[in-house]
Amino acid sequence: MRKTSFESDYNNGAHPEVLRHLLETNCESSASYGYDEWSESARKKIREATECPEADIYFLAGGTQTNATVIDALVRPYQAVLAVETAHINVHESGAVEASGHKVVALPSYEGRMEAEVLENYLRRFYSDPTWEHMAVPGMVYVTMPTELGTIYSREELERIWQVCQAFGMKLYVDGARLGYGLMAEGCDFDLPWLGHHCDVFYIGGTKVGALCGEAVVFPQGAPKGFFTHMKAHGALLAKSRVAGVQFDALFTDELYFRIGHHAIDMAMQLRDIFLKAGYEMKNSPTNQQFVVLDNAEVNLLMQKILFETWEPIDEQRMLCRFVTSWATTESDLEELREALHSLSACA
Amino acid sequence: MRKTSFESDYNNGAHPEVLRHLLETNCESSASYGYDEWSESARKKIREATECPEADIYFLAGGTQTNATVIDALVRPYQAVLAVETAHINVHESGAVEASGHKVVALPSYEGRMEAEVLENYLRRFYSDPTWEHMAVPGMVYVTMPTELGTIYSREELERIWQVCQAFGMKLYVDGARLGYGLMAEGCDFDLPWLGHHCDVFYIGGTKVGALCGEAVVFPQGAPKGFFTHMKAHGALLAKSRVAGVQFDALFTDELYFRIGHHAIDMAMQLRDIFLKAGYEMKNSPTNQQFVVLDNAEVNLLMQKILFETWEPIDEQRMLCRFVTSWATTESDLEELREALHSLSACA
Amino acid sequence: MRKTSFESDYNNGAHPEVLRHLLETNCESSASYGYDEWSESARKKIREATECPEADIYFLAGGTQTNATVIDALVRPYQAVLAVETAHINVHESGAVEASGHKVVALPSYEGRMEAEVLENYLRRFYSDPTWEHMAVPGMVYVTMPTELGTIYSREELERIWQVCQAFGMKLYVDGARLGYGLMAEGCDFDLPWLGHHCDVFYIGGTKVGALCGEAVVFPQGAPKGFFTHMKAHGALLAKSRVAGVQFDALFTDELYFRIGHHAIDMAMQLRDIFLKAGYEMKNSPTNQQFVVLDNAEVNLLMQKILFETWEPIDEQRMLCRFVTSWATTESDLEELREALHSLSACA
Amino acid sequence: MRKTSFESDYNNGAHPEVLRHLLETNCESSASYGYDEWSESARKKIREATECPEADIYFLAGGTQTNATVIDALVRPYQAVLAVETAHINVHESGAVEASGHKVVALPSYEGRMEAEVLENYLRRFYSDPTWEHMAVPGMVYVTMPTELGTIYSREELERIWQVCQAFGMKLYVDGARLGYGLMAEGCDFDLPWLGHHCDVFYIGGTKVGALCGEAVVFPQGAPKGFFTHMKAHGALLAKSRVAGVQFDALFTDELYFRIGHHAIDMAMQLRDIFLKAGYEMKNSPTNQQFVVLDNAEVNLLMQKILFETWEPIDEQRMLCRFVTSWATTESDLEELREALHSLSACA
Repeated sequence: MRKTSFESDYNNGAHPEVLRHLLETNCESSASYGYDEWSESARKKIREATECPEADIYFLAGGTQTNATVIDALVRPYQAVLAVETAHINVHESGAVEASGHKVVALPSYEGRMEAEVLENYLRRFYSDPTWEHMAVPGMVYVTMPTELGTIYSREELERIWQVCQAFGMKLYVDGARLGYGLMAEGCDFDLPWLGHHCDVFYIGGTKVGALCGEAVVFPQGAPKGFFTHMKAHGALLAKSRVAGVQFDALFTDELYFRIGHHAIDMAMQLRDIFLKAGYEMKNSPTNQQFVVLDNAEVNLLMQKILFETWEPIDEQRMLCRFVTSWATTESDLEELREALHSLSACA
Repeated sequence: MRKTSFESDYNNGAHPEVLRHLLETNCESSASYGYDEWSESARKKIREATECPEADIYFLAGGTQTNATVIDALVRPYQAVLAVETAHINVHESGAVEASGHKVVALPSYEGRMEAEVLENYLRRFYSDPTWEHMAVPGMVYVTMPTELGTIYSREELERIWQVCQAFGMKLYVDGARLGYGLMAEGCDFDLPWLGHHCDVFYIGGTKVGALCGEAVVFPQGAPKGFFTHMKAHGALLAKSRVAGVQFDALFTDELYFRIGHHAIDMAMQLRDIFLKAGYEMKNSPTNQQFVVLDNAEVNLLMQKILFETWEPIDEQRMLCRFVTSWATTESDLEELREALHSLSACA
Repeated sequence: MRKTSFESDYNNGAHPEVLRHLLETNCESSASYGYDEWSESARKKIREATECPEADIYFLAGGTQTNATVIDALVRPYQAVLAVETAHINVHESGAVEASGHKVVALPSYEGRMEAEVLENYLRRFYSDPTWEHMAVPGMVYVTMPTELGTIYSREELERIWQVCQAFGMKLYVDGARLGYGLMAEGCDFDLPWLGHHCDVFYIGGTKVGALCGEAVVFPQGAPKGFFTHMKAHGALLAKSRVAGVQFDALFTDELYFRIGHHAIDMAMQLRDIFLKAGYEMKNSPTNQQFVVLDNAEVNLLMQKILFETWEPIDEQRMLCRFVTSWATTESDLEELREALHSLSACA
Repeated sequence: MRKTSFESDYNNGAHPEVLRHLLETNCESSASYGYDEWSESARKKIREATECPEADIYFLAGGTQTNATVIDALVRPYQAVLAVETAHINVHESGAVEASGHKVVALPSYEGRMEAEVLENYLRRFYSDPTWEHMAVPGMVYVTMPTELGTIYSREELERIWQVCQAFGMKLYVDGARLGYGLMAEGCDFDLPWLGHHCDVFYIGGTKVGALCGEAVVFPQGAPKGFFTHMKAHGALLAKSRVAGVQFDALFTDELYFRIGHHAIDMAMQLRDIFLKAGYEMKNSPTNQQFVVLDNAEVNLLMQKILFETWEPIDEQRMLCRFVTSWATTESDLEELREALHSLSACA
């Protein structure tokens, strides 16, 4: 029997409504390279959902590809991107941003978040200290919403970051690989239209939010000239673009994208509750990634029944572990976890 | 009513058997980043179909991405790739190979094919003429099978190219974006196992041969060290890798990949016959891309009923046009074409 | 005894006036990274000589470095540079332009020159033919003055090219590795100020025109933002920048740059005369590179007395050979050549 | 009157013996691109001085260029280079290493040095923690000798780092921009031959040690194939290579390179003594870069008489300042400093 898996939010297939749309459109012929009718329809729906009628929207296959392509499109070759130490582009993308020529300058991370004040201090010093003339010039700020540690930005925090970016002539890019989970988190005090009016570019993650593959890059004020060719030069232009178009068309029909987010958050909060009630220490996270402290012995025992990721050793005895929910997580998965934890405590 | 389309072999959805496999596996959780069970199963089937038991196989999303990633993995930063003038990487990839730092050196094209003798002469001169020391060093030969013009290589032609490559220490890479159509073409005198033993790396195209997306890169003697990370650094590693794995698992079940090739070739030969019988001049092509010479007036009239691509002006009056078949082409599509041509000649 | 050498215009040391300036400034301390007083002085003099009072001027070490750095600074990552087939960047720079990510698209060469009409036709087609959407977008035109084959552009030819560039929103870059020889050539109908007002950027070659090293990049309307950092990121920012500054300060004192050009042209025309009078076939060239057709046997015999470069085999018997003059070429060098040719004809 | 300058070791011209050699060789014609006789002679002398008879040696123009070129030559595109936080490539090269595609992974710095144990722990974790599979693969270790903070490695420290590199299949590269000062520092317990046998590649800095420009890259066990073309593709191949060859030929004649190092160290130790006797706090440094803590008021007053660099604010009142000696520093410069400090204390 297959074990219950909380390993990730891409350990599953497509949400049934996404899959159904792929099925029902499969026999029609279409244009390609982004000109197909479903891509057009999805763009229209995303423009409405973001209240950005002038937005240019492009669909790419995956997140790392999207980050490298967008960053390289918006900054000059000699420019760096500023991100927190724990940022996905700084740690877990195998140097993809550097591979297109740009340094990632790491600022301190506060539970995965960048602080506007830290950013501003860095930029002030950059432009005042003459010895910094030999450093890579900051061209963009990269933040993730929600962050790699599951935390979210408040409206005020993001707004201040955007103000700093504008004051120093920098682009603000929001990596929304898990955007649906961030926006549906308890405590999130902004929505998609607000986000669309407070950054230069962001992407709406599909792969981790119910699609088989695909990310939708949104340029609220229009894309930089030549972005189509730029995508192709990065190997990011899908020939059979309908594969992404149809899926995003489904995700933005009847608010599916938000329903998926809502469901996963509901499951995550229940999961959090299970661990907390069982007395485990957890990191602060209102989203679908939950980080739990387990003894190494507990890790081994629990892994026999439930799949999850070991995130980072805390010390020689303890491990920070990650449990992730998604559209595919069920009440019965949670029940399996509850029982597994129960038998764990029985063992002890 | 939607017009019959011969625009491309990526103007369609997935082959029904591919789609069915996506459906029937959708509810199972899986590993990711290429470790999912369907990717493993597809690899096993491809190793059998290529008779390359030691092959390393990776799945990427699209063709241009695959070309840039594979080339950059096998040559040194200062090395160039040799290809014919009409090669996809030289013309239609928006400089993606150059974007990862490599010059594409263009040799003359013979109906889309590279000639071993021309290649050998170039390499002989490169290594004998001292003034060529300042030119980019050839590191790889890139050929397409079938070619961008629909033609195919014979076993002898490819074998001689490979001998030249080995004599000069160069890698041979075969772009098989439409490999299924090439191998099923009348006159093709080699098969997949033979190909697997006569090059350093090739890819089995999925996007143009029945999949929603996906290409399978095959390194018959094993991949270069670090190719996993290399893919990621190129933005080419799929998180939800099952999307490609499931599809290739289907394509290599019950010889579906070859059945698709066979069907499209059958349709293409009938299409060819329709044009020839109607008195049109055609380029030599035994595969699923057929090139027809039409008057500009004919182009306009025919376009009202049938979708196809204008490829290249021949002179002020005439246009070379491309008609492409695929798994989705039907007898009734051909009938539409036949009727459209008939009414065209009635007009004239 | 050392043989007389016509191998190149970089087979020598520095012009004595350049060397003297290095000597007389050697003991003074200075600022660095381009802020030294001689770089400032040289900039002032070049602004005057070009009649471009707003020009930004930077000094780099060598020509290939300059080309790659300037091109990458002025075009977007997905953009290509258009050049003739024989262009230095297309042939003899080991793929340096591609190494920074840009495709070099080769147009036909007319004795080394690009023709405005050919350029315009390419661009017209690029922006009208929908299938060209998948090709690298032209962002810059690169021409050399004089060309790699020793020929020069007329004022009218360059002006038309610049008009085409402006009509299509492209930058025009003039590689002046041997600019001093071009401007001093008989038949050149424009001067440095005219050039400064008919392109976006050009460089004044030092290495081949009397300096030990160094090229002066001139942006007549100002450099793109961040060019200082861009240079450094390309490894092209000299720490001890005085090495270039002092040399260009000398080259633009008392018209030394033009006197060097004039002398080399004088020597070249005498050399040309020697060959023509001796009955040899020569390519058209009014500059310091002279191309002579020699039998292979003649090549071998002449090489015993005189150093020169074999450029390209014409057929199995004959070789195109290059003889180059510079500031260092003397009447006595020409006499050596005359005698060598004389004994050659005596042998025959 | 020009102020006494301790701003840097590249604020001067060439050492007189270097300049003399440029003068005495100026009138001879020569081969180019590294084939000139002085480059050959310099190579021979460096092979002797390093006791590396099999070494391949190349001359480049500057340090940042050298770092980017060497690193890109020795690692694969997806590989990162490990360096300490304060490393020149991590801070002061404007992202040049990233511009050729490689991430710089920063490890903690101990007075500018890397510690073997920290390196080993990083590598152990890299190869044991499965979640690190998505990080850039370490391919090279970069250290500077002396470091950016003026400190030096001991023989034992470097040997342990090299052992770790070999155990994990990584290259070790020693940036010797100021190598002459490091080797001549009191307490340095290894010499050039020892260094040549304990790393994969290092460079002998010329620009900061008496040359007008130029760095000599030494591959003790031979250069990677194609390094000549690789240099050219990086814009780092000098056409008139004699400019570097002649200078290094002089630097390695009669031990000039070491005499320069010795003189600058002597001056630096006297300078250190002046500051310490005057009661200033200094960072530990046995080399030609001396770091002194000054009040902001002192900085302003001292700057009126003496030129130096402000390195980094310590707090709101105090600044860490850098004073650098070179071949050009004289006893009288030190006297100027002594007097300036004296009048400073008189003011207070």
